[in-house]
Amino acid sequence: MATRVDLCNAIRALSMDAVQKANSGHPGAPMGMAEIAEVLWNHNLSHNPNNPQWANRDRFVLSNGHGSMLIYSLLHLTGYDVTMDDIKSFRQLHSRCAGHPEYGYAPGVETTTGPLGQGIANGVGFAMAEKLLASQFNKPGHDIVDHYTYVFLGDGCMMEGVSHEACALAGTWGLGKLVAFWDDNGISIDGHIEGWYTDDTAGRFKAYGWHVVSVDGHDQAAIQKAIDEAKSVTDKPSLICCKTIIGKGSPNKSGSHDCHGSALGEAEVAATRAEIGWPHEPFVIPADVYEGWNQKDKGAKREADWNAKFDAYAKAYPAEAAEFKRRMAGELPANWKSLTDAIIAETNEKAEKLATRQASQKAITALAPILPEFLGGSADLTGSNLTAAKEFKHVSGKEPGNYISYGVREFGMAAIMNGMALHGGLLPYGGTFHMFSDYMKNGMRMSALMHQRVIYVLTHDSIGQGEDGPTHQPVENTSGLRMIPRMDVWRPADSTETTVAWVAAVERTEGPTSLVLSRQAVPGIKHDAKDFELIRKGGYVFSDAAGKADVIIIANGSELDLAIQAAAELNAAGTKVRVVSMPSTNVFDRQDQAYKDSVLTPGVKRVAVEAAHPDFWRKYVGIEGAVVGIDTFGESAPGGALFKHFGFTVENVVNTVKSVL
Amino acid sequence: MATRVDLCNAIRALSMDAVQKANSGHPGAPMGMAEIAEVLWNHNLSHNPNNPQWANRDRFVLSNGHGSMLIYSLLHLTGYDVTMDDIKSFRQLHSRCAGHPEYGYAPGVETTTGPLGQGIANGVGFAMAEKLLASQFNKPGHDIVDHYTYVFLGDGCMMEGVSHEACALAGTWGLGKLVAFWDDNGISIDGHIEGWYTDDTAGRFKAYGWHVVSVDGHDQAAIQKAIDEAKSVTDKPSLICCKTIIGKGSPNKSGSHDCHGSALGEAEVAATRAEIGWPHEPFVIPADVYEGWNQKDKGAKREADWNAKFDAYAKAYPAEAAEFKRRMAGELPANWKSLTDAIIAETNEKAEKLATRQASQKAITALAPILPEFLGGSADLTGSNLTAAKEFKHVSGKEPGNYISYGVREFGMAAIMNGMALHGGLLPYGGTFHMFSDYMKNGMRMSALMHQRVIYVLTHDSIGQGEDGPTHQPVENTSGLRMIPRMDVWRPADSTETTVAWVAAVERTEGPTSLVLSRQAVPGIKHDAKDFELIRKGGYVFSDAAGKADVIIIANGSELDLAIQAAAELNAAGTKVRVVSMPSTNVFDRQDQAYKDSVLTPGVKRVAVEAAHPDFWRKYVGIEGAVVGIDTFGESAPGGALFKHFGFTVENVVNTVKSVL
Repeated sequence: MATRVDLCNAIRALSMDAVQKANSGHPGAPMGMAEIAEVLWNHNLSHNPNNPQWANRDRFVLSNGHGSMLIYSLLHLTGYDVTMDDIKSFRQLHSRCAGHPEYGYAPGVETTTGPLGQGIANGVGFAMAEKLLASQFNKPGHDIVDHYTYVFLGDGCMMEGVSHEACALAGTWGLGKLVAFWDDNGISIDGHIEGWYTDDTAGRFKAYGWHVVSVDGHDQAAIQKAIDEAKSVTDKPSLICCKTIIGKGSPNKSGSHDCHGSALGEAEVAATRAEIGWPHEPFVIPADVYEGWNQKDKGAKREADWNAKFDAYAKAYPAEAAEFKRRMAGELPANWKSLTDAIIAETNEKAEKLATRQASQKAITALAPILPEFLGGSADLTGSNLTAAKEFKHVSGKEPGNYISYGVREFGMAAIMNGMALHGGLLPYGGTFHMFSDYMKNGMRMSALMHQRVIYVLTHDSIGQGEDGPTHQPVENTSGLRMIPRMDVWRPADSTETTVAWVAAVERTEGPTSLVLSRQAVPGIKHDAKDFELIRKGGYVFSDAAGKADVIIIANGSELDLAIQAAAELNAAGTKVRVVSMPSTNVFDRQDQAYKDSVLTPGVKRVAVEAAHPDFWRKYVGIEGAVVGIDTFGESAPGGALFKHFGFTVENVVNTVKSVL
Repeated sequence: MATRVDLCNAIRALSMDAVQKANSGHPGAPMGMAEIAEVLWNHNLSHNPNNPQWANRDRFVLSNGHGSMLIYSLLHLTGYDVTMDDIKSFRQLHSRCAGHPEYGYAPGVETTTGPLGQGIANGVGFAMAEKLLASQFNKPGHDIVDHYTYVFLGDGCMMEGVSHEACALAGTWGLGKLVAFWDDNGISIDGHIEGWYTDDTAGRFKAYGWHVVSVDGHDQAAIQKAIDEAKSVTDKPSLICCKTIIGKGSPNKSGSHDCHGSALGEAEVAATRAEIGWPHEPFVIPADVYEGWNQKDKGAKREADWNAKFDAYAKAYPAEAAEFKRRMAGELPANWKSLTDAIIAETNEKAEKLATRQASQKAITALAPILPEFLGGSADLTGSNLTAAKEFKHVSGKEPGNYISYGVREFGMAAIMNGMALHGGLLPYGGTFHMFSDYMKNGMRMSALMHQRVIYVLTHDSIGQGEDGPTHQPVENTSGLRMIPRMDVWRPADSTETTVAWVAAVERTEGPTSLVLSRQAVPGIKHDAKDFELIRKGGYVFSDAAGKADVIIIANGSELDLAIQAAAELNAAGTKVRVVSMPSTNVFDRQDQAYKDSVLTPGVKRVAVEAAHPDFWRKYVGIEGAVVGIDTFGESAPGGALFKHFGFTVENVVNTVKSVL
């Protein structure tokens, strides 16, 4: 029978061999965390390799994602569908074993990690999702939502600011089922960390309200004791500080950054084999080692036990059980289409003059009763983003709810929302000023990379933001977000378009949506009912000239009104103008060519109007067209004065149109 | 004679009246921090209102920049050129008193603040700059660099992740002359903070190695004592936790978020006047109050005393004194042009096949001896970014030097570099993987907004990054950075272009530069000497067809070689192809139209090749042209395999060119 030393050595061997074969990767962390991993995955983690989607599994996050061979080794050894061939093709095109753990590639990878600090923040999201769902679904005697979230993280995660944001919230929220293991190996890429990392990390986490314990990260009994202790502290998240030797087992490179981010080299791999007593060829694992790791039977039993519990719950609470299943499957509620069609029609009927952030709040208010999975929030701008509706119960400290004040923590908010979306059962959205999408941009990108339905509510767009000045006026950011693959950006022009955008964002299963909304009021517009479907196409003919158009004005958001007014003036003077409303370029670009050509007829001159960087619009107006845009920073003044100052006037739009004809 | 109560009330009155007149702004923080401000600005801050540029002034940062009326009040009252008319036009177009303190608008504003957390990080930069310059210039008996940096910050700054990154480094670096005052008022925009902010902040900062003391923020004697104590601790930064009442003086709104971010209202303004005993009309300050605040004579004496010290220094160390003046003025060294021309020519002569990150390291190595103001660094990727040269002395803990391992703290690095650049005397540059420019994007934007010469070294661009996969492969980011107003982005194609880009970045006084560099080797190219000036124009004809070109291929970075090869193939087959190398679109766009037309001849079909999001390139190729780009995320595989997989092949470029002809 394999010893625990053998089991740990299997991780070390697989990791160093796969990195060696790829001649690329990070052997240091997997080799240094082998004992921690063995204790957790073999003796504590409640998972089922046969079904990586089991709803009540414990979640595991490798926040130090560069150590990806650690999780691939664990998935392979415990019985997930990660084959030795997959491991042999580590870091090769189309391998399940990508350079960093990629969500959707290898089964059992709960979240994509690598961008440091975000994994632990995802972990906070997983644990918060568990807590919130437990509060919504569990009943006396029926704890159907009841699992832990475990996170491995390294020094890099600790240094990143997002770890501060997320871990402070974890403390405030009292996430007792979050257990993090810090790989305290004293090494980062630049070398021994004393020169740049001298935090008393235990003290820091105690200051956040965490339970903190320090252990020798190679002492399995001590690690087990620390886990038991962590579980006994139910009202605080736990940090287990694990003193480890990076690359442990490598006789000449362990304890140094030489083993952090590159292959050990053939000679050192051989020396390590001798040092740790692992005589097997690369990618050969003895049967008894496999047996020592195999979690398939145990996992099947865990899930079967839970299924029995769930069946009892379903008998006692059939409606709740059905709702739990629906929400965990990410399905829309019954009658979604008819209910939302009615909301859109009603919004259109009122045609109110509102800021689109106000229209957004009305949409949220209308959708909330249909969507109990809604989990609203804002990075300390609830009253400005207008992200809350009256019926939301605000999370406060350890008290659960369905609306979160994240504090002034944009990046933390995004990464936590990613964790909650990945967990399932919740539909998180969060607001901030559009400008501060900058702070969380990589979190938004990760939503897109992982195909997650997270909705970003970005209010106070562009210079209409007004008096707060250029630090608060996004001019380049909307187009920056449009270029993130798989991100849908909407910049609606009125309350009906805003409501359609919200419905589209909720319906979208492929990825996240950014709603870019105005601070200032925009005119109420009463659409023909046929527009409702056209808005969903991202761009449509808002008003057309009689006969063939001489020119097309493309606009969106608060500038659609300028286009409408300019078109009226030009039409009156004999120029035939089509106005195209383009709330979402991303969505429009996905339409078929015939539709796109029907909106932007080839050969017709075009002018785009958006209070944003002009370059992006050249894809629609070409070199011969023109853009009324802004390629400088804004200024501090009332929004109306700024629109005039920067040329967002009917007069300038008219003159610009004339200039291209 | 005015009492200190009167002096504080002047701040309260000016702040609430200016916000009331603008009907926009944040009265709460200025009113709550009036006593702290009075103690600091009237009794401790070594400044000279007559000369806001005095080299050895103490630096002051209002990190909670929304409380801008606090600093405008202080500047006006102490004698800076901020008039009452300026204050009356608070938040109006072209006012010196912009919504947030804008660097370059009101004299005495050391840095633009408002994006929370960055001000304290700038402050860490100021204090680090002081420490490093002191180590470089001070001589026994001649402490010509010897000043404090004071920062006010609020709860929002404390919550932001960047405060973690920067304050941890401040502790590690032992910045004894950094003194921060935390406005601990228990309020953020969403309300009382207990629901989302429960950190033991004192404990957190102690964990960073700071000296921490807590006081009543309205008790001037206690505040003075805390400052004295902070100054006595010379090897640690100090945090003075000031318990305050937000909006203090407002009888009905103080202590609540009602006074945080909007005008008090006429009635409450009147009630506040009565409450605090300030009978004067809005914008009327009695003479004795002005007298109590005036720092012009004291300031002149402070500077005169320092000038005398500097004169003595200049006598004893004339070369160092001249160098100090040059560096504080931001002037280039003597013979810069001839020295750098020689470096460029020599690089070109060698025409080595190198990754552009390697070429960048060679440029750094060549420039470092000429530029003692260089302050290199990396966010824990020194060996990958290749940002260090042999002769650099690495900062390690409290030991000064001229190269900084910032740890895994991209945003902190950017904001600290901004502070160092604003301080003067240093030319900071910092590296990270291009992908993680996302983490610091708003810091980069702030460099641009403030016209600061900060150089960002962004290596491992695009899918050439290879095995690390999509989390590490920037595809949309280069164009995102190009759209930041005043940011110059260079993506050089070979070692000569890389060297020219470095020289241009150093010469640039208007703003920051991003150098986007390859992980992988690019061919060595030997240019005609005439190219040296053309490269500086951002885009140039690399090779032309005989006679009128049928098509122009625009490329840059590692894709220039593809363009060259495709052109050779096409030319051989009879298509006349011009190749344009476009290392910097930003710089090219600033050239006169005649030059631009000479490179991109109007009417000639165009194809752009960049391993990045294609949309940006439509501004050059139009709708009729084509872009060989990538609008999806990358994959994990060796870089060469990815180039092939995503269509960056000679064959595909050739076919794409054919498709537009």
